[in-house]
Amino acid sequence: MLLRQLFDRETSTYTYLVADPRTRSAALIDPVREQLERDLKLIEELGLNLEYVLDTHVHADHVTASGALRDRTGARSIGSTRGAKCADLQVRHGDRVVLGDLEICILETPGHTDDSLSFLIDGNVFTGDALLVRGTGRTDFQNGSPEVLWDSLTKVLFQLADSTVVWPGHDYKGHTQSSIGEEKRHNPRVAGKSKAAFVKILDELGLPPPKHIDEAVPANRECGQPAALV
Amino acid sequence: MLLRQLFDRETSTYTYLVADPRTRSAALIDPVREQLERDLKLIEELGLNLEYVLDTHVHADHVTASGALRDRTGARSIGSTRGAKCADLQVRHGDRVVLGDLEICILETPGHTDDSLSFLIDGNVFTGDALLVRGTGRTDFQNGSPEVLWDSLTKVLFQLADSTVVWPGHDYKGHTQSSIGEEKRHNPRVAGKSKAAFVKILDELGLPPPKHIDEAVPANRECGQPAALV
Repeated sequence: MLLRQLFDRETSTYTYLVADPRTRSAALIDPVREQLERDLKLIEELGLNLEYVLDTHVHADHVTASGALRDRTGARSIGSTRGAKCADLQVRHGDRVVLGDLEICILETPGHTDDSLSFLIDGNVFTGDALLVRGTGRTDFQNGSPEVLWDSLTKVLFQLADSTVVWPGHDYKGHTQSSIGEEKRHNPRVAGKSKAAFVKILDELGLPPPKHIDEAVPANRECGQPAALV
Repeated sequence: MLLRQLFDRETSTYTYLVADPRTRSAALIDPVREQLERDLKLIEELGLNLEYVLDTHVHADHVTASGALRDRTGARSIGSTRGAKCADLQVRHGDRVVLGDLEICILETPGHTDDSLSFLIDGNVFTGDALLVRGTGRTDFQNGSPEVLWDSLTKVLFQLADSTVVWPGHDYKGHTQSSIGEEKRHNPRVAGKSKAAFVKILDELGLPPPKHIDEAVPANRECGQPAALV
């Protein structure tokens, strides 16, 4: 499997390019609108065909490039049945999307938002904002819920093999990856904690709202192409 | 091979943690002083023993954590025979450093600075500021030379297998890795260029000096622990 991690410094967002080296079929996970040209150039240079653009959820901190990528390449966009209605494929837990010789297994991992998905591909899990390296997403908007996030972490993600590589949707401290085993042992919000303790931590975070939430959420509900801008 | 890429957002510097999973012997490449605690914590959580700290060169844009890591862990520091005299091991082209079941092959790749090294480990090359993703280091200080850098790129690094994974010392556009084959084909400073054209590009870059050069270079000549601070 070909895998490239890409970073948007402005919003500390990770985008992932995943491809089957034999068929050259590719998917982009969580692309950022401002990085559209960078990502298209890389896809071209690597000789890949972009088949799918996947959003782990309706983001509040950046605008997705999914709609623009669909227009430019013919790729199909994928999101949760609970997410943006503009997505070509609305998927749910247990669905599988074929990408050349690879398979993208859809996991519903709500809690950060009610539409949060993770994508399991060949021993790698792309966790969006559900599970971060030594952290988790916040749960205080877009129908987030710490109780639901706890269940997604402990009953879905932590059921994967310990060796599964974790690729987060963001990182603010310069970490780029982790593993399920590592997060079980060392994630300070979850390791050795009860559900009640986890909920208390999340409820007391007291974070300011994301800077661009008022623009990003409505735009992302339209695949990054709000009518006013098209 | 266990490999973790770590990022210092302030200076866009990549640090690499490399380890042999069997013996738990580990090395850190280009650690940043401000990230010392993050890196020590990760090493501890992964159950690794830090044996070596390697600097690809005397950096001008950030202060190395090599001296502090040596003090805290007992690891030995490694640099070029042309680099910081404080390093425990001063290595040259063709030297090999044993790291558990792994071997670190030393490549001299001068041109960004006269002491620039690359490290080849198990199909991965850590290129410091010699070769960047779709770019190269600048050559206008610390005895840099575009002619010498051209030779390092074409006669040393581009002689490695095309599949060799390239891990750069910095990136400013959110790329995290490349390969030798990709850089041969798509690096805009080198692909399809003559040595003369390359030298002209480098000579005409006209970049401002690195912000922290006056502090960083003297500090790094003392492994990040200038006498005034100890």
